[in-house]
Amino acid sequence: MPELRKDPVTGRWVIIATDRARRPSDFVRDPVTIVGGRFCPFCAGNESKTPPEVLAYRDHGEANSPGWQVRVIPNKFPALRVEGELDRAGEGIYDKMNGIGAHEVIIESPDHFLTTANMTERQIEQVLWACRARILDLKQDIRLQYILVFKNHGEAAGASLEHSHAQLVAMPVVPKGIYEEMEGARRYFEFRDRCIYCDMVRQEAADGDRVILETDHFLAISPYAPRFPFETWILPRRHGSHFEAASEREIPNLAWVLRMILRKMDKVLERPAYNLVVHSAPLRQRELDHYHWHIEIIPKLSKIAGLEWGTELYINPTPPEEAAQFLREAGLL
Amino acid sequence: MPELRKDPVTGRWVIIATDRARRPSDFVRDPVTIVGGRFCPFCAGNESKTPPEVLAYRDHGEANSPGWQVRVIPNKFPALRVEGELDRAGEGIYDKMNGIGAHEVIIESPDHFLTTANMTERQIEQVLWACRARILDLKQDIRLQYILVFKNHGEAAGASLEHSHAQLVAMPVVPKGIYEEMEGARRYFEFRDRCIYCDMVRQEAADGDRVILETDHFLAISPYAPRFPFETWILPRRHGSHFEAASEREIPNLAWVLRMILRKMDKVLERPAYNLVVHSAPLRQRELDHYHWHIEIIPKLSKIAGLEWGTELYINPTPPEEAAQFLREAGLL
Repeated sequence: MPELRKDPVTGRWVIIATDRARRPSDFVRDPVTIVGGRFCPFCAGNESKTPPEVLAYRDHGEANSPGWQVRVIPNKFPALRVEGELDRAGEGIYDKMNGIGAHEVIIESPDHFLTTANMTERQIEQVLWACRARILDLKQDIRLQYILVFKNHGEAAGASLEHSHAQLVAMPVVPKGIYEEMEGARRYFEFRDRCIYCDMVRQEAADGDRVILETDHFLAISPYAPRFPFETWILPRRHGSHFEAASEREIPNLAWVLRMILRKMDKVLERPAYNLVVHSAPLRQRELDHYHWHIEIIPKLSKIAGLEWGTELYINPTPPEEAAQFLREAGLL
Repeated sequence: MPELRKDPVTGRWVIIATDRARRPSDFVRDPVTIVGGRFCPFCAGNESKTPPEVLAYRDHGEANSPGWQVRVIPNKFPALRVEGELDRAGEGIYDKMNGIGAHEVIIESPDHFLTTANMTERQIEQVLWACRARILDLKQDIRLQYILVFKNHGEAAGASLEHSHAQLVAMPVVPKGIYEEMEGARRYFEFRDRCIYCDMVRQEAADGDRVILETDHFLAISPYAPRFPFETWILPRRHGSHFEAASEREIPNLAWVLRMILRKMDKVLERPAYNLVVHSAPLRQRELDHYHWHIEIIPKLSKIAGLEWGTELYINPTPPEEAAQFLREAGLL
């Protein structure tokens, strides 16, 4: 019997359609393979082919030369640009502003063939520190309201270059989806005087059915009302609204959790393409009692049917309790 | 220079990134081709291979035999089921209900190879009447809150069978995206005492830059803040909140408009896959002053980058003024 489940933060109802494909092997899988062989501007030695770096963690060498482990550069084809004044205007019933912002690429390693799942914990940790450092720097630009940190892995997930990289888009507005999460979490806090994500961590840890793994600092779960099969959330146990305020203990632990989750997905779902997005409070908000930063990972398994656009009606064939069990029980490759 | 534009109904900001691919020929196109050659349960003569029809418009023949022009059947693998009592329950912080509803398929023609764009106006009109009739019938079931009518054309848009068909999902909740549209339109009405879509029709018709075509009853536009390249909306000129209350004059005119738009897309975008969704007010709402039913069509051109999930940050390379011009000026195939 299918079931309708409501995401407690956004209020989105999702259909869990249990009569359809549900097990990992029921999905048409298309493993991400790093082919190489073509010129790659992200590889060590090709630094001159990218815009000059804005940050690099390196053992040796000068800026824009080899010797780095993680390198951050402006996107060569940026969605938003840093130059100019922020200019707001109306056109009758419509509103617009010019595209002020920043769009940067975090090259996660000098090695073309190394996927995030196959990196060392230490390497992933450096990537996380680099993201944090860029947010703290860009946050000083008071025109910016939000910085979205994300990663597309595999062509099916929208990655245009196969060399492992994350991205950040800094923008003068708050994305609608984040705004809605904030509003939903605020309403819950007004009603109960508790953070909804803290309640989620407590309930999921006690229940256990949807837990994939837990550490001292994080809980990785299949959420109660997932839009997609094997959608996975990583929630910090300690309340905090901003990713960039994660502690020196949390960041290394997060690197360990991310590596484990990505390796489990590689094993259970056969090296899937995926999207990873960091959800964090807007830059101009002080530390908030009602919002709780977290990471959402969506492996690209089922075709989007198109129904989702505008309606946000998702039909998910895999109950999260089953997805969590597959991932929880998977050994590592 | 990129530009940020705000959708006036939902408040969603979209990046119009004018430095990227923008013209029809810049997209990797993958024309939808009807291959045939395999057994098709939707073809005339195979009626016994589907669940029994719930509606058919036919010249001759008995129920579940050939002779029909349009045939409506329950989906063999329904996302929701009509049997049982609607049962709501909580699980700690979560809410759920059992999957009560209906999921039907509207087979648009007995001919396997006929796409909607290549049908006669009269045939498309019959499909629209069939959708309307099914809504009016299902609306009597007071457990149902919403009926979503949609069409996925082409495998890339999620169609699993190539024989032209639309679908409807009737459900006991209102989809989040529709709820948000209703709320946005309500806020505008409270502020201005006018329907925002009526204002949109007036402003777009007067301005003309984003108009693709107009008739006595409808306006087809590239919306001001489109999420996707060549996204197209069809708005009725006459205010009305429910699609099923469209008049006997509007339905034939809508068939003409739909046929024209789909043929223009076929020509300009080379027979693209697309998703079409009817946006209408919830079933239990009386006729509303603030909401205005309409149709949204999204051709499947660019890869979804994954950023959109949860954040609803869309980066659209094609300004709607350019998309509208291409479609407006296209002759027909």
